[in-house]
Order: sequence, then C-alpha cells, then structure tokens
Amino acid sequence: MERVKPIKLSEGMRVSELGEQMKNAGFGARKIGLAREIVRKMFSDEECKVFLGLAGAMVPAGMKGVIVDLIRGRKIDVLVTTGANLTHDLIEALGDEHYHCDKWNDSELHEKGYDRMYNVVMPNSAYVKLEKFFDENWEFLAQASTIRGFISKLGEALEKNSTGEDSILRACYETKTPVFCPALADSGIGLMIWGRKIAGKKIEIDAFEDMNEIIDLAWGAKKRGVIYVGGGVPKNFIQQSLQFSKGAEYGVQITTDAQEPGGSSGAPLEEGKSWGKLKPGAEENKDFVDVRCDATIALPLIFCD
Amino acid sequence: MERVKPIKLSEGMRVSELGEQMKNAGFGARKIGLAREIVRKMFSDEECKVFLGLAGAMVPAGMKGVIVDLIRGRKIDVLVTTGANLTHDLIEALGDEHYHCDKWNDSELHEKGYDRMYNVVMPNSAYVKLEKFFDENWEFLAQASTIRGFISKLGEALEKNSTGEDSILRACYETKTPVFCPALADSGIGLMIWGRKIAGKKIEIDAFEDMNEIIDLAWGAKKRGVIYVGGGVPKNFIQQSLQFSKGAEYGVQITTDAQEPGGSSGAPLEEGKSWGKLKPGAEENKDFVDVRCDATIALPLIFCD
Amino acid sequence: MERVKPIKLSEGMRVSELGEQMKNAGFGARKIGLAREIVRKMFSDEECKVFLGLAGAMVPAGMKGVIVDLIRGRKIDVLVTTGANLTHDLIEALGDEHYHCDKWNDSELHEKGYDRMYNVVMPNSAYVKLEKFFDENWEFLAQASTIRGFISKLGEALEKNSTGEDSILRACYETKTPVFCPALADSGIGLMIWGRKIAGKKIEIDAFEDMNEIIDLAWGAKKRGVIYVGGGVPKNFIQQSLQFSKGAEYGVQITTDAQEPGGSSGAPLEEGKSWGKLKPGAEENKDFVDVRCDATIALPLIFCD
Amino acid sequence: MERVKPIKLSEGMRVSELGEQMKNAGFGARKIGLAREIVRKMFSDEECKVFLGLAGAMVPAGMKGVIVDLIRGRKIDVLVTTGANLTHDLIEALGDEHYHCDKWNDSELHEKGYDRMYNVVMPNSAYVKLEKFFDENWEFLAQASTIRGFISKLGEALEKNSTGEDSILRACYETKTPVFCPALADSGIGLMIWGRKIAGKKIEIDAFEDMNEIIDLAWGAKKRGVIYVGGGVPKNFIQQSLQFSKGAEYGVQITTDAQEPGGSSGAPLEEGKSWGKLKPGAEENKDFVDVRCDATIALPLIFCD
Repeated sequence: MERVKPIKLSEGMRVSELGEQMKNAGFGARKIGLAREIVRKMFSDEECKVFLGLAGAMVPAGMKGVIVDLIRGRKIDVLVTTGANLTHDLIEALGDEHYHCDKWNDSELHEKGYDRMYNVVMPNSAYVKLEKFFDENWEFLAQASTIRGFISKLGEALEKNSTGEDSILRACYETKTPVFCPALADSGIGLMIWGRKIAGKKIEIDAFEDMNEIIDLAWGAKKRGVIYVGGGVPKNFIQQSLQFSKGAEYGVQITTDAQEPGGSSGAPLEEGKSWGKLKPGAEENKDFVDVRCDATIALPLIFCD
Repeated sequence: MERVKPIKLSEGMRVSELGEQMKNAGFGARKIGLAREIVRKMFSDEECKVFLGLAGAMVPAGMKGVIVDLIRGRKIDVLVTTGANLTHDLIEALGDEHYHCDKWNDSELHEKGYDRMYNVVMPNSAYVKLEKFFDENWEFLAQASTIRGFISKLGEALEKNSTGEDSILRACYETKTPVFCPALADSGIGLMIWGRKIAGKKIEIDAFEDMNEIIDLAWGAKKRGVIYVGGGVPKNFIQQSLQFSKGAEYGVQITTDAQEPGGSSGAPLEEGKSWGKLKPGAEENKDFVDVRCDATIALPLIFCD
Repeated sequence: MERVKPIKLSEGMRVSELGEQMKNAGFGARKIGLAREIVRKMFSDEECKVFLGLAGAMVPAGMKGVIVDLIRGRKIDVLVTTGANLTHDLIEALGDEHYHCDKWNDSELHEKGYDRMYNVVMPNSAYVKLEKFFDENWEFLAQASTIRGFISKLGEALEKNSTGEDSILRACYETKTPVFCPALADSGIGLMIWGRKIAGKKIEIDAFEDMNEIIDLAWGAKKRGVIYVGGGVPKNFIQQSLQFSKGAEYGVQITTDAQEPGGSSGAPLEEGKSWGKLKPGAEENKDFVDVRCDATIALPLIFCD
Repeated sequence: MERVKPIKLSEGMRVSELGEQMKNAGFGARKIGLAREIVRKMFSDEECKVFLGLAGAMVPAGMKGVIVDLIRGRKIDVLVTTGANLTHDLIEALGDEHYHCDKWNDSELHEKGYDRMYNVVMPNSAYVKLEKFFDENWEFLAQASTIRGFISKLGEALEKNSTGEDSILRACYETKTPVFCPALADSGIGLMIWGRKIAGKKIEIDAFEDMNEIIDLAWGAKKRGVIYVGGGVPKNFIQQSLQFSKGAEYGVQITTDAQEPGGSSGAPLEEGKSWGKLKPGAEENKDFVDVRCDATIALPLIFCD
C-alpha cells in the first residue's frame, strides 16, 4: 500500500508539481493526479485514438484556450460537442466576447440585452455578426450535406473572417480534426440555418449520415481513449460508437453529476463495461478515472504540463 | 407570512393529501407542493400549450406509465425527448423488459449480456427484436423525411406489433402529440438506421427541418408552460424555441444538477428570463419552480391526483 | 431477475401504494421503496434497537410531526440530533413559529429580524421566549450534569410551558427515549447556557459523560438498526458507538451529499463495514439502503403507512 | 463589464499564475480566482481575525500540510474543527499513516483491519499507539477542564512523542492558536477519554466552557474573516459566535453540498447576513465567495502563493 502524502505548497510552485502531489493526496485531489497520468498515457500511446466529448458551456467559461491547444497539439483525434459550444466559439471568432456577471437580475439583463450562463453573460448583439457571417457565407456553407461537413465549412469560412483570436472551429479545420455534433439543430447555429430555410434558402443536411464516420473511427482504431467533459449527447455519442469497437482502453471523465439519479451524464465510466463501451480489462484509477469536479477547475489542472 | 406546518402522516393517507401538506412544509417538500399546483395551473389554463422536455433514462426507471398518462390525458402538447428514451420505450413495446440490478459487476454483466443504467439493466438481446422490427417496417419508416415524422411512423408501425403494453410512441401517435428528438442519431434507434444505411438502404431525414414546427408551436401558442425532466437537449431545444415567443408563463423543472458548474441542465428556470425563454413577469414559486430531486421520486408525487 | 414495473398512478391513490410501486421502479424511486421495507423490518424485529441520527434543520422544514410520531409510536429507541433541531423544536413548543420565505433579500431579512434557513425563516424574536423559558426553569435545568440529562429536563420543563403543540423534546421525555447531542454548545440552547454562565450562574455539564450510555445501548442490544437523516455529528456519533458492537444489522440513510468528496456525511452505509459500524454480512438494498434525496421529501414517503 | 478571458496554459506554469488566470475565466474557475484574492485580503488586513472552520476528513486526504502552513504562517487566528480531524492528525503525529485505496471491498478491509474514508484507509492498528499515548500522558492531559485546554495539552504532550512529522495539534500549540471542537466526544479522541473514564480515571471537562472564549474572540476583533472548509459543527460554531459580533467582513466557503436541501453545510455565505453572521454590507464575489468544489482540489489552488 502506498502512503497518502500531505500536499506541501511552496511559493512559485508549478502546476505540474502540484498535479504530481495531488496524486499522492486523497479524495478528489488524487483523482486529478490520476487523470493527469491517464491523459498523458493515452496521448503518448501511438496506437490510441483520442475522442473528446465536450458538453457544458465551456467556451463562455474561458476553456477555449485549453481545448484549442489540445487540438493544435494533435492530442485529440475526434471532437464531439454541443451546438452551443460551437456557437459560442463562432461568436468569439467573429469578434464578440463573453463577460463576467458576478451578480445578476435576470429581468434586467433581458432588458439590457444580455443572456446569462451562471456567472457569464453574452451580449444579445452577438447575433448580429452571426447573421452577417451566415449571410455572407451561406452559399459556401450550404454545400455541406452532413453536420460534420457543415462544421468543417464553418471553420474554413472563418479564415476569411478572422479576428486574430483562435477558435475551436478553425483549429479543427486546420488540423483536419473531425467534429461531430448530432444535435446541431439545438443551438444558435441551428437557428441561423432555420432562419435561412424559412427564408426559402436551400440546404440539405442528413441527420444520420455522420454516424458511419465516427463508428468507423472508433472501430478502425487500434486503441481508443475517451475524455468526457460533462455528459449529454457528446459523451453518449462517443459511447455509442465505442459499443461497436472493443471498448475504450483509457478514459477520463469530468463531471459534477451524481450517478444515483441514473442519467448517462453522471454514470461512472465503469458502467460502460457492461455495454462494451469500456474495455472489460481496463482498470479503474489506472486506465480510467472519474473526476467529480467543475470542469473549469479540473481541465487546467489536468492538462497543464 | 405563512406558517410552515409540520407534516402529519396518517395511515392510508392519499398521495394528493401528502402533496398538499408538502406545500406547507419547507425545503424540497415545499417545492414538490408548489410544483403540484403549478402543473395543474398550466394544465387547466386553456390558452396554455404544455411542452415536456424528457431527458434521463426515464423508461428503464419505470416512469413510462406516468408519461403515457400525461399524453393520453391530453395534458402535454409537445414532447421533446432523447433517442434513448424512445429506444427503451420501443424495446418495451416490442415485448422486452428492464430488470432490477441492486448489485453489479459490470464485467460480468457484459459477459452475461446485460447493459446497466445505475440500478436497472436491459438484456442485450433486446436488440434482436429491435432489428426485426426495423427490418419488417423499414419501407414504411423510410418514407419519413423528418425526425418528427420518423418518430410518428414508429408509433404508427407499433400498432401492428402491439404486445398489449402501452408506450410513449404509441400514445403520442394516437393523440397526435408531436415528438421532437434532435439527436435521434445518438441512440439505439439511430443505430438501427445506421445499420440499414450501410447495408445500402435509402432514407433521407433532414437534420434541421423540425425546427420550424416546434418554433411555430411555441410562437403560435397564447401561453406556454414548460416541464423539464432532466436537462440536456430536450430542455435546451424547448428553451431555444421559446426564445422566439415571449417566453414561458409557467414552468416546472426537475433536476439534480447544480447550477454552479454552469451547464444548461442545472440552470435554474429564472436564468431563462435573461434569454427571453421565461416571461420576465413570471414569479418564482408561484408561476414556476425548480425541484431539485430525483425525477423518479418527484414525478409520481407531482402528477398523482 | 425481477422486472422493473412502470409506476401507474391513480386518482386518490394511497401513499403506501405509491411506496410499494416505487419499489418496483428504478433509480431513486426503488431506493424509497426499499427503505420503506427496511425500516419496517427493523421496527418489527423485537430484538432490534433503533438509533435515529437526525441532522439538518428538520424542525424548521416541517418534519417535526414525522419524528414525533416515530418517537410516540415507540419506533425509535435512541435519538441523536443537533442542537439546532432541539432549539427549533423548543422554540415551536414555546409558541413561536417558522415561516415560508420563497423569495429573499438577506440584508432586508436582517433588518426585519428574520433568520433564514433556505426557504424558511424564523423570527429573531423567538429568542425572547427562549430567554424567558431559561430564566424561569434555570434552577431545574441546572441540576443536570450530562447533556442527555439536560435535554431530558428541557422536555420535563416543557410540560409546564405547554402551548398544546407536540414537540420532539416532550415526546422523548414522556417516552423516556434517550436523546444525545454531543455538540449542544453549538446551538441556540448552547447560547442560552452561555448567557447564564457569563451572568455568574452555575451549571456543570460534562462533555464526555454521555458516551458511556450510548455505547452501552449499542453494545447491549441484540440487534441494531440505524436511520440517518443527513450526516454530521448525529450520524458519526451513532456510527462510533456501533464500532464497539458487532455493527448494525439494518440501516437506512437519507442524504444528498456525495461520497466522492470523502466526508462522513456522504459516505455510503457500506463504507461502515470496514469500520465495524455495519455488520459485514448485511446486504445492500435488502438490509440497508442509501437514499439520495432531500429528507423533507423522503421522510414522509418512507414512514407513511 | 469585464471580459472572460480564455485560460492559456503554458509548460512549467506556476500555480499562482493559473490562479490569476482562473479569476478571468467563468463558472467555478472564477470562484477559485476570487477566493484567492479574498483570502489574501483577509490575511493582509491587520485588523482582521481569521476563523478557520475545518470539517471533512482533511488529514487523511493529505491536506494537513496546507493547514499547518496556514497556522505556522500566522494566517489563522482561530481553528474550529472536528474530533475526527484532530484524531487523524494525532495518529499521524504518533507515526501511523493513511494509505491510498483505489479499489475496495469493505468486508475484506474489515478483516484485514483497515478503516475506509472514500479512497483512503487507516490501519486499525493506529489505535494501539493512540492508547499508549493516552496512557502515558493521561495525568497531564486530565488536568484540562475545557475542550480547548485539552486539545492544547494534546499538542504540548506531542512534543515529547515527536516523530518528526509536523501536525496541526503541535503547530497550534506552538503558535498559541486556539482550537475549538465542541463535539470532541464524537471522535477517536473521545473514545480514548471514554475508555479511561470507564476504567475509573478522573477527568472533568465542561461542555459549554469554551463558548465564552470564541465569542470573546469574535466580539473583540475589529474585523472578522471566515474560511469554511465543509460545513458541520465547525462552520456553525463560528457562525454562531459571529452572530454576537457585527458579522464577518470577509468569507470564503468551500463545499460540495447544495443549498436546496436546507442544511447549514450547504447554505451560501449570503444567508448568514439574515442572521448577522455576515456583515450586511459585505459584497458577494468581492468580500466573500462560495466555492463549490472538492476541498482537496480547491485548498491548494487557493492557498498556493
């Protein structure tokens, strides 16, 4: 048995050193430390394809930089995310911003034109640049016939509209990282498409066409690693694709949802073994780990080298 | 100010009486009591269209009966749910069942062919009947060009395959209740479609076509009531449609997710006011209420007359 | 394997019938159903002494009636609780009340003299009657030399100050149910004692004297059943006493705290086996169960016959 | 309005820099960043007395070093904690250790003599050294007449039994930091006292005597800062003492408990304003902040310079 070692802080200490020490502590700190090891194991295993499921409003919360670095650093092979994250990413790429909101009155925010996500707000006016972007690039975007293709075109179109700030969409486009988003209709981007469709513009995007590619990616990989930030569709869509492979060899899940209410978002990775989504031989806290923590705190701690 | 009255239990007491007493108690019990009042207010308001967002594995957990009764009783005008709930509903309609699993070893469950959702398992063999159902009904189902249309055809097709047990799909079909499911690809039903597509069968379902109908339903209603069971896409897809109306007049949300990690699933209804998803004048704990409780406990308590 | 049966609500349905049906459903509902069975098993086992650990502000939240019925019905042999619950119980027994507070501004509440516990408030003026009660009964109360003895004298003194409404203190006194409260200093009652001590009045209550009695009760029982409402000192003080017995045969725990942060309050009952607080042979979901639910919702559902 | 700035990680980055960047991000990360500022504000305000309420099994989880540094660095003026934390601290000071336990079977652990706290275990044999320590130092310890005095004597006695590893008890003794623990009976140390009392040894420790000192400390301070790690008695005992002052000027609370179930442990600091425990003028997210996070992750992030 290994001893729990008390964490010893020192001035000017590096995040990597704290991460290392956390592994030697208990409770959630240990989980952070183990997650640091497991992501590095999957990143350095050349046979392993890494699937990142990204739910939650991670862009408004300032996690874009962490995700972009993972993509540009070729750590991630597949991204599955929500329409909301892509919409907020696009909004920032077009030059709009998110703001702190440490106190709020939602009716007042509404009058002033701010949309709230916990302690972050987005100016409603962001939709103006969004509309303009879709107007200007519609013909190009509407060539897509799949959601994944449409998202790739968003990234491609962005290059012409660059504001200098990096984005998930652009990073994925440039690195050819496939991005899946089964529920893209359920987002601001979806609304932009709806707006043009009711105005008579044509676009035909198949709801099921992308399944083949992600299942092939999962099936074709020699090994599979999964990183789930939050649950929802991103986690489930990856899990479902893995069911057809032999299951993931590595896994890190970051969530604050509890397992007892039975939802997929709070289900521990171990549960995936019954479904064939996680390899039966994978060992908890060695090959995979559940981190029960706010992702905005856990992500930087886990990924900082 | 109203006094908190201690709950007084009596033998043979009715659920409705307990619900009434809970309103006079504090903490979560009060929320249950208030939710009971608010759902009845929205059900009896003839100008109000009720949107039910149903996430979580509610069918495996035995909540199907409660949902079916709401549908058949014409309490619900629109259902937005996950592909998983529809898949499990279909599986039960085809004669398979879910089982209790109070203790588990996920690797063993995998070998024995059971898929776990917390303390409930589904036999993997359920996919056999599912495949057969899709084979037999494919031509009929493949006529659909929208997700909502496809789901309606599932309900229609079920009549020929009836096992006697009622289902959400059938109840919605018979009552003409529209069912939306933006991420249907992310489910067992999605896998059935994928399986036939890669076998060369044709189906063309548009990913964005349904947006128009739900936005029209939200926009066209004189008043809007929302019931969110869990969060995820079902909640967000309703919220997004309401943004184009004047916001919901009534709301009940049942979730165990916390607001502080910033996800949409844990966001209190009040936050919706900033977005225009909830009417600015709507009053908390009178017109809308957040119930922080396992939905399998809260649903029967709220809906039992 | 037993099938999960969908819950079927009916108008005028009894709580006991819903409780029975919940046992056949999944997730948290099943836990409520199992808890109903397990508490009845421990209540009807004549060899079993039942220890109730009661944390949380259960009296302000209107749970007093449920607890009093358990005590007067001789279902509970030992009560361990917080000073806060006893203080609020005393306050209500002296004729003051708690009030609903569905919206709040804490600074305003302070000005108006209301102390808030989530959606319940207590008028600060309650301290007036409290002071008077302690003044009038001080000499009688100060005869106590143990916390348990002091609490018993509070119940005895109350008979002379009755307002007609039943109380935990009085019910325990009349039924001779021992009440333990290791941290009584940490409460309004503690403040009353402090106030008199600094005014020069004498009272000598030993901090450790009660340990012997509760350990004897645990040790002397043929079997032990535990019911934990919330965690904190009440749960831990019972657990610690059980460590010297052979562990509890039956257990029901109601809490919303998670296990992953490592606190005693969120620890599942199973963890107690390692310590000898729960009998190694006790079977989860048969002899003991963890109910993850707001206690104000779970308590009436579990205890209503 | 201030912009949310995406976190940008860099290799070898310092914890202090990450903490600074977290302040500019959203959701929980922002709370960590704000907490860093607020604790430094209260530490550098010479008029401010800092009260640390420490619940949870923080010593087994490896947080001892962080706490000891706060004490030895004279950042903390008053410590209120659980008997469990003091017992585990004493156990480590006497040379025993805690161990990682990433997988467990509680019945097996029991047979092998290990007591589990989530993913940490303590060998039961730790009680042997504990018994010996109490035997050898009993006469000295039994001179105490208050809990605070008894704890101070534990720290003093430890010097003679030093194993070289620093401890909270010793650090508090040497820096004359008062330690309060109203429920000391509810702990392994309590059991040691009980064991000697039933063996006929004398000790008389008053249950209420310490209240005066902590209330005086709160009342006498020009300003008050509070840091609550977890809730329970430590938080409440500080809050209760502050009620007699004008309330705390600064506050940081770290907890994973939710507010909706109504317990004191999950109550946001703001609620304290109604009671007079927090200064009505104190501003949320500037003077005080609630951090909803596993304390083993938050503590190092907040306190590392």
